[in-house]
Parts: sequence; structure tokens; C-alpha cells
Amino acid sequence: MRFLVINGPNLNRLGLREPEIYGALTLTDLERKLLNLAEKKNFEVVCFQSNHEGDLIDAIHEANDQYHGIVINPGAFTHYSYALLDAITSISIPVIEVHISNIHKREAFRHQSVTAPGTIGQIIGLGFKGYELALLALIDKLGGEHNEVRKDS
Amino acid sequence: MRFLVINGPNLNRLGLREPEIYGALTLTDLERKLLNLAEKKNFEVVCFQSNHEGDLIDAIHEANDQYHGIVINPGAFTHYSYALLDAITSISIPVIEVHISNIHKREAFRHQSVTAPGTIGQIIGLGFKGYELALLALIDKLGGEHNEVRKDS
Amino acid sequence: MRFLVINGPNLNRLGLREPEIYGALTLTDLERKLLNLAEKKNFEVVCFQSNHEGDLIDAIHEANDQYHGIVINPGAFTHYSYALLDAITSISIPVIEVHISNIHKREAFRHQSVTAPGTIGQIIGLGFKGYELALLALIDKLGGEHNEVRKDS
Amino acid sequence: MRFLVINGPNLNRLGLREPEIYGALTLTDLERKLLNLAEKKNFEVVCFQSNHEGDLIDAIHEANDQYHGIVINPGAFTHYSYALLDAITSISIPVIEVHISNIHKREAFRHQSVTAPGTIGQIIGLGFKGYELALLALIDKLGGEHNEVRKDS
Amino acid sequence: MRFLVINGPNLNRLGLREPEIYGALTLTDLERKLLNLAEKKNFEVVCFQSNHEGDLIDAIHEANDQYHGIVINPGAFTHYSYALLDAITSISIPVIEVHISNIHKREAFRHQSVTAPGTIGQIIGLGFKGYELALLALIDKLGGEHNEVRKDS
Amino acid sequence: MRFLVINGPNLNRLGLREPEIYGALTLTDLERKLLNLAEKKNFEVVCFQSNHEGDLIDAIHEANDQYHGIVINPGAFTHYSYALLDAITSISIPVIEVHISNIHKREAFRHQSVTAPGTIGQIIGLGFKGYELALLALIDKLGGEHNEVRKDS
Amino acid sequence: MRFLVINGPNLNRLGLREPEIYGALTLTDLERKLLNLAEKKNFEVVCFQSNHEGDLIDAIHEANDQYHGIVINPGAFTHYSYALLDAITSISIPVIEVHISNIHKREAFRHQSVTAPGTIGQIIGLGFKGYELALLALIDKLGGEHNEVRKDS
Amino acid sequence: MRFLVINGPNLNRLGLREPEIYGALTLTDLERKLLNLAEKKNFEVVCFQSNHEGDLIDAIHEANDQYHGIVINPGAFTHYSYALLDAITSISIPVIEVHISNIHKREAFRHQSVTAPGTIGQIIGLGFKGYELALLALIDKLGGEHNEVRKDS
Amino acid sequence: MRFLVINGPNLNRLGLREPEIYGALTLTDLERKLLNLAEKKNFEVVCFQSNHEGDLIDAIHEANDQYHGIVINPGAFTHYSYALLDAITSISIPVIEVHISNIHKREAFRHQSVTAPGTIGQIIGLGFKGYELALLALIDKLGGEHNEVRKDS
Amino acid sequence: MRFLVINGPNLNRLGLREPEIYGALTLTDLERKLLNLAEKKNFEVVCFQSNHEGDLIDAIHEANDQYHGIVINPGAFTHYSYALLDAITSISIPVIEVHISNIHKREAFRHQSVTAPGTIGQIIGLGFKGYELALLALIDKLGGEHNEVRKDS
Amino acid sequence: MRFLVINGPNLNRLGLREPEIYGALTLTDLERKLLNLAEKKNFEVVCFQSNHEGDLIDAIHEANDQYHGIVINPGAFTHYSYALLDAITSISIPVIEVHISNIHKREAFRHQSVTAPGTIGQIIGLGFKGYELALLALIDKLGGEHNEVRKDS
Amino acid sequence: MRFLVINGPNLNRLGLREPEIYGALTLTDLERKLLNLAEKKNFEVVCFQSNHEGDLIDAIHEANDQYHGIVINPGAFTHYSYALLDAITSISIPVIEVHISNIHKREAFRHQSVTAPGTIGQIIGLGFKGYELALLALIDKLGGEHNEVRKDS
Repeated sequence: MRFLVINGPNLNRLGLREPEIYGALTLTDLERKLLNLAEKKNFEVVCFQSNHEGDLIDAIHEANDQYHGIVINPGAFTHYSYALLDAITSISIPVIEVHISNIHKREAFRHQSVTAPGTIGQIIGLGFKGYELALLALIDKLGGEHNEVRKDS
Repeated sequence: MRFLVINGPNLNRLGLREPEIYGALTLTDLERKLLNLAEKKNFEVVCFQSNHEGDLIDAIHEANDQYHGIVINPGAFTHYSYALLDAITSISIPVIEVHISNIHKREAFRHQSVTAPGTIGQIIGLGFKGYELALLALIDKLGGEHNEVRKDS
Repeated sequence: MRFLVINGPNLNRLGLREPEIYGALTLTDLERKLLNLAEKKNFEVVCFQSNHEGDLIDAIHEANDQYHGIVINPGAFTHYSYALLDAITSISIPVIEVHISNIHKREAFRHQSVTAPGTIGQIIGLGFKGYELALLALIDKLGGEHNEVRKDS
Repeated sequence: MRFLVINGPNLNRLGLREPEIYGALTLTDLERKLLNLAEKKNFEVVCFQSNHEGDLIDAIHEANDQYHGIVINPGAFTHYSYALLDAITSISIPVIEVHISNIHKREAFRHQSVTAPGTIGQIIGLGFKGYELALLALIDKLGGEHNEVRKDS
Repeated sequence: MRFLVINGPNLNRLGLREPEIYGALTLTDLERKLLNLAEKKNFEVVCFQSNHEGDLIDAIHEANDQYHGIVINPGAFTHYSYALLDAITSISIPVIEVHISNIHKREAFRHQSVTAPGTIGQIIGLGFKGYELALLALIDKLGGEHNEVRKDS
Repeated sequence: MRFLVINGPNLNRLGLREPEIYGALTLTDLERKLLNLAEKKNFEVVCFQSNHEGDLIDAIHEANDQYHGIVINPGAFTHYSYALLDAITSISIPVIEVHISNIHKREAFRHQSVTAPGTIGQIIGLGFKGYELALLALIDKLGGEHNEVRKDS
Repeated sequence: MRFLVINGPNLNRLGLREPEIYGALTLTDLERKLLNLAEKKNFEVVCFQSNHEGDLIDAIHEANDQYHGIVINPGAFTHYSYALLDAITSISIPVIEVHISNIHKREAFRHQSVTAPGTIGQIIGLGFKGYELALLALIDKLGGEHNEVRKDS
Repeated sequence: MRFLVINGPNLNRLGLREPEIYGALTLTDLERKLLNLAEKKNFEVVCFQSNHEGDLIDAIHEANDQYHGIVINPGAFTHYSYALLDAITSISIPVIEVHISNIHKREAFRHQSVTAPGTIGQIIGLGFKGYELALLALIDKLGGEHNEVRKDS
Repeated sequence: MRFLVINGPNLNRLGLREPEIYGALTLTDLERKLLNLAEKKNFEVVCFQSNHEGDLIDAIHEANDQYHGIVINPGAFTHYSYALLDAITSISIPVIEVHISNIHKREAFRHQSVTAPGTIGQIIGLGFKGYELALLALIDKLGGEHNEVRKDS
Repeated sequence: MRFLVINGPNLNRLGLREPEIYGALTLTDLERKLLNLAEKKNFEVVCFQSNHEGDLIDAIHEANDQYHGIVINPGAFTHYSYALLDAITSISIPVIEVHISNIHKREAFRHQSVTAPGTIGQIIGLGFKGYELALLALIDKLGGEHNEVRKDS
Repeated sequence: MRFLVINGPNLNRLGLREPEIYGALTLTDLERKLLNLAEKKNFEVVCFQSNHEGDLIDAIHEANDQYHGIVINPGAFTHYSYALLDAITSISIPVIEVHISNIHKREAFRHQSVTAPGTIGQIIGLGFKGYELALLALIDKLGGEHNEVRKDS
Repeated sequence: MRFLVINGPNLNRLGLREPEIYGALTLTDLERKLLNLAEKKNFEVVCFQSNHEGDLIDAIHEANDQYHGIVINPGAFTHYSYALLDAITSISIPVIEVHISNIHKREAFRHQSVTAPGTIGQIIGLGFKGYELALLALIDKLGGEHNEVRKDS
């Protein structure tokens, strides 16, 4: 199985920005961590980051024929990019949304996700671990057990 | 390590309710699945369900001295129980919020979580698997690697 | 046929509270009136009152296997208990919502019912008579004539 | 006793419109049903339908001297005709509002009734039966038992 | 093919009102223009104008059996007449909504159309030409090519 | 006369996405259809699609000196790109906004167009035909008859 | 000089409705009072009342060629009839809006007037006297002194 | 009879400010006009202007024992001074609110009057004439005819 | 005189929760403090705490016949429990609402009290002292001096 | 210890205004009552009343060096004077806000206090007694026991 | 050239208030700094501070004939004083609004300026330097270069 | 010292667009003006313009290591680009936001800046001069005097 991990705007600044708060780990560290998991669990993962909304949309479109699923952290686009929502709903592979921090503890505008309705689920506030769990969830979903997905909260 | 899994109102109706839509798996099936995981990963898990807000609050208070973390699906209380939020913030062990379905695809009132700011994170829309991932995230968080938790979305 | 009549919070205070305004009739009077109707019309009715949201939810769940329909006055829970809404939608027998007073003549918060979408209909402002009419409507609905229910306002 | 049943805009289309959904029963069927009830219960009923807001207002004014009560389904006027509300409050005979479908399961604009505060009560979602129950409630109200009407929800 | 063109309130004042702004062309000019088009394109068109909401509703109901489609400019009713919306949804022939001016450049209340969800589409801001294009679109829709209508924005 | 047709984000997915719903016609089919019309009606048309907001703005700026008018479907940018609105108001050639589907039947966020005030008009819900009608309206507007454009709804 | 006084929906019920509150004076009394004033001040006045929005619009249109000014109490249409607003702005003679009661002391929906922006002014809460003052203001305005009208509050 | 006319903030700038728009008449002209009316109609009038909210409140308090009524143009305080509202409701003589311009044609914040509920009525948009009419209305009200004041709009 | 002091959800966690912030004093300390005051001032006080909304409602109902007044800190129920509001208004003894912290300095949802309209007053932000003052106010109110209670802010 | 009691706009009208409702006690009575308490409890109190926002701000500034605390009833300024809020936060002595009536039972605009976040607490609805309790709370706060102030509701 | 610098409520507390946060510089320091600049740049500056809204309005009115421009920091009046807005628009000399702190980083109510539409521009968040820049901008504006002022953001 | 001046979408159209309103000065003129200032004041300035949100984000990131400060006019992105806000907060050099026109005199959507909280301040409405003042403010801030920056409005 083959997955695409997409990081949106400003996530290239991880680790460079306010290191006393965010720690010293960078986007490269995150990507290395995910490659290690892929190797251990025997799947393929490709990482992509861009600050350009249009590039993210193009990447989502192209992924449809090349990957089995997408893990995406849309950064601030989460809160206003209906174009990203449409891109996600225009493809047929499953998408999971990840946020490193607990967005419900931050500014009010970060409490709403316009992209979430296009995804199958979200993992929020669990740091880099969230990306790993999202990949495991995709594998689980694609590998079976779908009969247990429920509409109940 | 020892965890408490709390299911809120109406989740005792899993599997009994609209089986053609939700599948045949019940709350008992979910709990058995989590016990299996606990055995495999070598931790302890206790499951608790109640339709009573007060019982959930009592359980959260008491958990503080008996468990290392909580996984909670507050059901419909997610959307209005500020008392549950206060209960979660009144304890010091980490809490993760889980929703079986993607609440952002449902009625507008389900898009807002008043309990989320008290938790460390949320896992939404990933079915029963979401509970398993939440337990793994707690183990990960308690076992180290906390230096990578970030405020960035 | 067998019906459950549920009265929510504070309805046990009927007749005891501001008798110069509300009259001297109590919850017991209401329940006696409904038993009389049941005897006359040859059906069975059981009455239940609680100030506890959890007890109401439990009662709704259990009614599913024991009754043919429910008449419920959720009291103030009408306006915020999404858990009650979920309880009602989790069962398959028909539910009718009743309010003794015309809630549209009272405070603004009483104009909205969060439980109404889970019921098949509502009877509002018609006093104790509203409960009787609701029972008649359930009998009518269960006894046939369902081909005339319309989506038109 | 003598009652006026008023049906507002588009209710003349009952049965003609999307019959696979709404059934084959028409406005004429509804009116015949109410006449049957009147005969059986020994009261008089007159039915009136119009798509014209002004005609409905005129009919309400004139009813004051000719009828003992009104059952009205204001159709879409329910949601914006403050003129209809004023017409209802300008007369002294009791008025009950009826909706065939459960308006709380439909579009958001249908959840609010601007006419309800002028009526003594509403019966919603119970199909043609709702009109019959409304007539019975008027008879009950006019015939006594008014000492039990309560302001409590 | 046979079409009805309906103009709502105040559109009888076209050309008479503020001629220095709106030009000298009147409702009669518009209707003549549409008759010319009908002759040239070999279809039938009937024009109707009224300031009475009820008359517009009646006309829409009756059109269902006599025309293949409707072009309607509901004037100010666009912004509040849910009764007109219900009339449009109660018939089975296609309806297109037209506005002579660009309503999005005018007062805020004109930016919302409550009737639009009942129609198949809207043509806004293109002057008298908008009516002609609406008729051409109806012919096109009824004559085939329906396989290309898309839900995508 | 020479026109530019601009399609915004995700419209390159036409026909590839949910073909059972949207049909098999693609963006290429749309563009071929418009070229055919241009040939028949003796004007020139150039088609451009991009998922990048900045590219759409650049294209609008450059069109000012090279085309007589623009037909634009801004896709999801319709609902939040004030930058696109400013681009449209910064040029002097006429612009018409087109939407393939009836956006008023879809999610609430699609009911508002922030770009519409910059255009001369909108054609909504008429499928591929909407683009053709928009081109005809531009020709009509540029060829005369402008004395009939009215501010009346 | 010749003026039209228009009374909207339900104002025909003046004096008949809740006489212990509103007094015994009727619409006829009001009209007689205005005729007396007209005779005394040497102008002509015609009174018109209707519960039909369309009739009010027709009357406003026709007044343009027959009267020097209009005094209108739009009743409940004040709060939602944008069609009445358009009718008022479509004529060139001055219009003054009158309300018998102080609408700012009543229900919230009565605090907003959608017709006021079309008129030159409003007189509110001064009883029947308000109509007399409105007529005097029209005479004053038409007879000169217009150089003192100011935009300042 | 003796009346106080109060002008609020910035009304001392009448005639000095944008004379090409507002004309050349000043506050002194207004006050002279009212003194003339007082002489002609045989009552007493005192005029007071201040830009200080506290001075206006003091003046209202003191007027209670010295005047039979107040005409007030609260200027911009109309839109936010709840203290002025309380001052008006704290006295027992009648108060009429006047605005020179039609505030409903201006910025949105001017459409709401927080002081209006304390007054008996408002006269809006009728220039200096509005003050004269307000004084006549006070005389009329104090001299009798109060039996005709109605709650109906 | 005999008073009931009710503490709502999570107040049993006082002193146990974030002691470095909240200090070391517990609910037991608060209750002891109030008993001391009662002894000193010669009245009786009973303390009750529950995390269960239904238990609080039951306690309020029963207090009506056993106490002269209630001091209540509804905790988070303050912000959404309309059932608690109804319970308070269903009894005839006076109730004062207390909050330990200044809720207007905290999250926005804590600024609104839905229970306050049922009480005679509120004491906010004054720590444990607030409970003592509330008891003194009840004694004062019951002992006389009621002629000075005013509606003025 | 030395305290300043500040009463805002219209509180000089206490007792003079609607005596049948508010009683016969005046501002002077209130001030005498507080002086009595001061004498009995051995502290100093100075009373100040003004209808001028600026005077209240000046008084607050000057109090900082002359008093140990302030009790303030800002009257209607409570609901909009952010300048008063800033004045309160610009000083370092403790301030308690008092309202004589229960503002949560009155008009909606009185439910919000913009000044409350600057104070340490509020006492609402307890009549003149509220001022006395506020003074006792200030003495208590300044005299010790501050270790028990809590952030918990 | 001659300018007036106006400081609104509470700005007399600069430097005295929370010196550990705001520094030790006072209003006097600010005024001295501006006088120095005036001397260096060869213009005249007068400084005025008041906590009274009415005094600020009076000062603005009088400035019209005595100064070439105004720099104003309206303090908290920025957020609600429409009277100040009217004062600014009633004069013809240019006004620039200054805020010492970045109001967009503070409480939500400080994000809106009701006075800004009356000024030619605002300088926000640049400390005392903002006043100096505002004076330079006035000089620049009055001295020429006005052909470059643009409406574009 | 070295500064970057960033101009966002559509600012490349300055001077080309509606020259009769905006004047003939272009973006090139603005940039030349800033280079002149830089030469005169002995600092370095680089100008950058793009219509692409992603390019602006990239430029901001890169500026962190190459410049001492940024002056940015985000154009329409000001009103919705949370990604730009995150980019600004992800760097450590000071940023000042500039708008050429007074955005508070324009459409409502332009009154809100989502980027302002990330900057140290804003200069609005002062034309090209605003850029110059922003550069002077950056020099002033970096050169000292930071002890006077205040949180007071």
C-alpha cells in the first residue's frame, strides 16, 4: 500500500519557529519518522509540503491514481479553503485530516474546519503521533473491518 | 498502565439501532475489541457506559487516582455539557475524545464540541478503530516523546 | 395497545406551584385522566416522571421492547438535551411530543425544540387535553390510515 | 357548535403533487373527512382554502361573528406573515394552528412560526389526523375543562 | 413548445419610473421583444404580470398543465415569499428565475433569493436579454442535452 | 470579437468525478462545445483553467488588453476570494459569472457569491448551456441594446 | 391639494378589537376626523384600507397621477413587505409612514421598518393625531420650506 | 403650557456644516422658528442644546417639575445612550423624539433607537417641521383626546 | 431560620484541583466556615453537593417545605440548565446564586447565566465570602427591610 | 479603612420615581444607611453620585490614592461604557460592582455588563443591602483570607 | 501650520498605571516629545486631554477654525461614541486616529472603531511614535502630494 | 538596515485602473518613491509584488534571515488569509501592515483584518505616504525607544 502525506502552509517552519515552545523537531524529523514507520509496517509513504493552495489541489487530484489514501494537515487552509474541500471530495481514495495542536484550545477561527466534511475523519492535538495514527487508520480501513464504521457519535 | 474508556449517552444502543445502517456490532463487541488490544499490548483497560451526566462526572473524578488516562466518547453531551468540560479540566491525567462517526458530515449542532478544550486531542470518524488509536496515543504520550507536541496546526 | 407517557423535569410540581395561576390539578390528576381514557378506549397506559435526564433516556430505551408508542413532555430538556433527541431517534416506536402551555408565547429560549426532529409530531398549548390527543394520534397512526401522512406544511 | 377550517397557500395542490411521496389523498378528501367527523360528533364545519394572504385575513375577521373557533394551516405564511398573526390576535374566538408534516424535520426556515403566538396551540406532523384532533380540542376547550390549561411546558 | 413568462410586483412600472436611470423601455416593450423571439424561434409565449402574490401562485399552479416551462421574475417576492417557493416546487415543469439588474450590487436584502432553490437556475443582471436567454435555456433543456447538467459549481 | 472563458479550481475534474452522477462529459467536452459555438456565431474564444488563485488573477489582468469580455466560473473561490473580486473590478471589460449547478440547492456556504458584485451578471444552474448563454449575452451587450439594462429586480 | 391615506392589514378592526384597551374609536372615526381636518385646512383627502398587499401596491401606483402625496400605515406589512417598499420608491410623490402605537415598546419584530427607507419620514406612537400631523407635514413640504430639510439626526 | 426642546450632540453645528448639502439654516433659526410657533399658538417653549450626555440627563431630570412635556433630538446618543433612556423613563411628563433626517436611509447603526421605548412617539425625517409637529402633538395629548391612542401599528 | 446551601457539579473538587492556583481550602472547609457563621448568627444551615442535575432539582423541590431560603452555586449548570431555572421558579422561598470566581473574566460561555432570572440576586467573584454574604442577605430579606428593594440598576 | 461609594446616572432619582413601585427611600436614605454601617463597623465611607461619565472616570482615578476600595453602581453605563471599564482597570484598589435590581429579569441589554471584567466581583438584585455587603466584602478582602479566592464557578 | 492633538479617556493615566508593563513614560512625556518634533519641523502643536466625551466634542468643533488638522486618540470612545464620529464629520479639517497599542491583539470589542470612518486614516500599535507619524502625515497631506491618495487597499 | 516591502494581489494594477479616480501614479512610482527615501535616510529597501498567496508566504519566510523588518499591504488577502497571518507569526522580525485607502469607509468585509494580530501595527488611509511612515516606524523601533510602546489604546 502507498500513501501520500500532505502538509500545508507554514508547516515548513516547524522547529525553526519559537523553538523554546515548539521543540527542536523539524518537518524533516516528522517525515523521517513516517518513513521509519512505513518501513517497519511495510507500506510506502511520500511526503509533500507547499504553501500554495493551488499546488495542494493539484497534488490531491494527481494522488487519486497513484496512492491508496492521503493524510493531510491543511494548516490555516483548514479554516477557509472551500477549494481544498472540493478537491478532496473530487477524488475517491480516503483522506484523513491531522492537526498537530489541539485547535480547540486556540483562537476561535481555528475551531471550525471547512475541509473536515470531505474527509473520513480527523485526528487533532496528538503531535507528530497523529500522523502515524492516521496512517494506521488508513491501513485498517483499507484492510477490512469496514463493517464497524458507525454514524453514531 | 491502566486506562478508563468512558462511553456516554445512547452508546449502549450501538448495534441495536438501525442495524442495516450501523452494522451488527454492539457496545460489547467494542469493549471486547479493546480488551483484546490491551492484552496484546500489555496494558489494562476498564470500560464504563452511562446515560447519566452525573455518573460520567463522578467516574471522571474517581479516575484521577486510579488510571493513567481516559478515552471518552461523550455522545451528545459533547455539544452542551460544560459540566463535563469542567470535570475533565478538574483532573490531571490526560483525556482523549473519540467520536465514531465524522460529526462534521452530520447536523450543524454536532460540529461544535464544548468538551474538546479540556482534552489533549480528538479522534473523529474512524469507527471503533478510533478508540484503539486513542489508547495507543495515550501510551505514546505517557511513555515519552512528549517533546514533539506542537501548538502548530 | 400499550403506551408510555413520560413527563420530564419539574412536571411533578404541577398544581403545587402558583395554584392561583395554574389551577389545582396535579400530576396525579393528569395521570388519572389518562388512565380513564385508556379504560374507555381499551388500551393500556403507564405514566413515568423524572427530573433526571439519564432516567428519561433509560426509560426511552427500555420502552422500545415494551410499548407501542411514547407520549413525552420533556419539560425544559426540550430546549437543550440533544441526548434526549438521540435517545428518541435510537428507538423504532413512534414518539409524540406534548407541551401543556403555548411555548411560543413565553421566553425566547422556549421557542426552539431540539427534541422535535426525533418525534413524529408535536401537540402544544392544549393543556392536559394535549396528552389525550397524542394518545389518540398514536392509536390512529398504528391502526392504519398512514397513507395520508404528508410532508406539506 | 360551528368551526371554520382554513387552509393557506399551495394546500390546494395536496395529492396532485409528487403523489408517490405524498399519497393520493387530496384537499377534497381532507375536507370530506372533516365533514364526516362533524356529522359524527354533531358539530358544523366549513372549509376554506386560498393562496391569497388578504383573503385569509378577511376570512379570519369575518369568522369572529360566525364561528366558535378556527383551525388554520397557514402553509408557508406560517413563517413570515405577521399580518396573519395580527389578524388572529384581532379576533376573540380560539384558533389552533395545524401542520400536516413535521416542520422540524424540514428546511431551517420552516422551524419558526410567526403565527403561533396568536393561537392557543399547535398540532404538528400528525397528517390529516391533526385537523381532527384540533377540532376535538376546540370542542373540549369551549365545553369546559378550561381550569386545567397550564403555562408549564 | 409553450412557455409562460411571469413578472411580479412593480414590474408594471418599468419605463415609467425614473426614466433617466432605467431608460424608456416598458413592460410592453419587453413582452413584444419576447413575442418576436418566440415567432423567430417558433415557440409560443404568454406573458403575465401581477402585484398580487396570490395571483402569481394561482398562475404557477395552472401553468403546470398548460405550459412546458416558466420564466419568472418574482420582483421583491424573491426575498421573502416562501409561498412562491412552495408553488414552484409543487409543479413539475421547469422554472427559471430572472432578475433584470445585478441584485448583488444593491441593498443587502436583495442578495438572498428564497425562491431560487425551487427553480432549475437563475439569470441575473443581464437586462431584458436575460428573459430571452432563459427561454432559450428552457428549449435547450426540454430538447435534450440534459446529460450534461452538473452539480459542480 | 474575442472572449476568454476561465474555469477555476477543481473544474478540471469534470467528468472524471462521480461519473454516474455528473455524466461522462469533461472539461475538454465543454471547451469543444464553446469552440463550436464560436465558429458558428463567428467570434473567437480562448479557454483557460487553473486551480491557482494567483494564476486566475494574472489571467484576468492580462485579459483586459486582449479580449472583449470574460466568462468565469470561479469554482469554490466564488465563496471567499475577495482577491478575485478585486481583480474583476480592476479591469474594464465586462465579466459574466457562471455556475454549472444550482448553488442555491447545495450547502449554505455556496449560497453567497463574493465575486458577483464585480461582474455584470450571473447565470446559475443551467449546465454547460450557461457558458453558451453567457457568451451570447456578452455579444449582445457589446453589440448594442445597452439602453435596456435596468436596475429593477 | 389632494392626498391619499392608506391603511394596511387589520386596521379595519380598529375599535372592534379589545375595546377596553384600544378605546371605542373605529377606522370610520379616524377617516371622519381626517375629512374634518381636510375641510378645515382646505385640501382633499381620500381614505383607502385593504388587507391585500397587492391592492395596496396597485393603489400606490395609481396614486402617482392622482394625488400630491400619500400617508400610509402599512400595518404588519411594515416589517416584511419589500414589495411595498419597491412600490413606494417607484412613484415620485412624497410618502409619510404612520404608526398609531409606539412600535418600539412592542415585540422585537415590530422595531424594524423595511418600508421606511422609501418614505420621506415616519410619525410613530402619536395615535390618530399622527395621521393629521403627517398631512400637515405633506402640505408644508409641498408648499415650500424644503430648503431646511437636513440629513443630520 | 410650557415645553422644553432639547437638542443633543453636534446639533449646534447645523447650518455651519456642509452648507451646500444641509442649507444655511442654523440651530438659532430652528429655535426662532419654534419661539414663533409658541407665540402664535400661545404656549411657552425653552430651547437647550448640549454635547454632554450628563448635561442632557440633568436637564431631563429638572424638566419634570418645570415643564409639561419635552421634545428631544438626542443626536447620535439615540443609538447607544441607555443612560438617556433611563433619564426619560425616570420622569412623568411626556417626551417625543425627533430626527431631522430620515435615519432609515443612512448608515445601519442609525436605524436603531435605544431611547425610543422611553418616549411616547417619534417624528423622523421631516426637517425642522418635525419639532413643530412634536410640540403640536404634546399640546394635543395634554389637552384631551387621549382616549384614541392605540397599541395597533 | 433554616437555609440550604447547594453546590453543583465539580465543586466537590475544590482544593484538590490545581492547589497551587486555587489554594488548599476544600469543600469541607467551605461548609465548616458556613456552619461557624450559622452558629455565630444563630441560624441553621445544611450543605448539599451533587454532580447530578436531577439530584439538584429534587433537592430544590424538597427545600420548599423545609427551608426559608437557598444559596446555590450551580457550577457549569449555570450556563445551560433551563431545568434548574424551572426548578427555582417552581418554589416560593428566595434563592440567591453565588459564583466563587468572577465569571466575567473567564471564557465567553461563562458570562451568561440562564438560572439568574429565577433567583432574587447573584453574588459573583467574592470567593467563599460570597456564600456568607448570600446567607446574610437572605436573613436581611426575610427579616424585613423589603420595602427598599428596587428595580433600578 | 476608607471607601468610596459611587452611584452613576439616574440614581439621584431613587425614591422620586414611581414611588408606588420603588418605595419611598431615596439616595439620601441609602447614603445615610451606609454611613451608619461605617460608624458601626468602624470604617470611613464617602458617597458620590453623578450623571456624567467623565466625572465618574475622574472620581475613580482620584480614588486610587485616597481610598482602600470602591463600591460602584454604574447605572446604565454598565452596559456600554468601555471608558469606565478602562478607568477601573487603570487603578490598583479593589472595585465591587453593585446593582439594586436583578438585571437578569429586565430588558436584554441589561443582561450584559461591560464593566464587570474590571471589578473583583458583583452583587446584583439585593437592594440597598447589596451596597452594605459589598463594603463588608472589601473589608474582608483587605483584612486577609485572600488565600481562599477561587477561579471555580 | 498648527495642529491639535487630542487624547481621550484614561490616557492621563499613562505611566502611572501598571508601570512594570507600560513603562515609566507619562502623558507629559508624550506631549513634550510632540512639542520637540514641532519645534524641529517648524509647526505648532497644542495638546488636550479629557475624560469627558462632551469636552472632546466641543474641542473638535472649536478646532475647525483654529487648526489645520487634528490627531486624536479617542481611547475607549473609539468603540462606541457615535457622537464623536459625528463631531469629526461635522468639521472640514483632516483628522487622523492614533492608537498606542495594537488593538487587534486585545479584547474583541477593541477590534472595531466607530470613529474611523470619519477620519482620513489610522495609525495603530506604533506607540508614541504613532502620534509623530500622524503629524508628519498631516503636514504631507496639507503640503501637496494629494494626487496619490488611493481608494485601493 | 534592510527592509522588504511586500504588495499583495491587484496592487500591480495601481494607476492603470480607473485613473480618473486613483490618479496616474503606478506601483513603479510607489517603489521609486520608497527607493528615494531609502537613499535619503540611508537604509536598504527591496520591493516585491505578487498576486499569489503562496508566493507571499514564501517571501515572508525567506525574509526572516535577510531583512530587519517587513512592510506589507496584503490587499484583499487582509480579509481572509489566515495562512498569511500564520506566516507573519512564524517569523521574528517586525511587520507593519499598510493600506493605501481608508478601509473603514468601504464595503463591510474590508473593515476586518485577519492579518493585523500578527503585525506590530497598521497604517491605514494615508496613501503612498503610509509606506514611508511604516519604514520610519520600523527604523525607530529597531533603533531604540522601545521602552515606550504601550498596551493602552
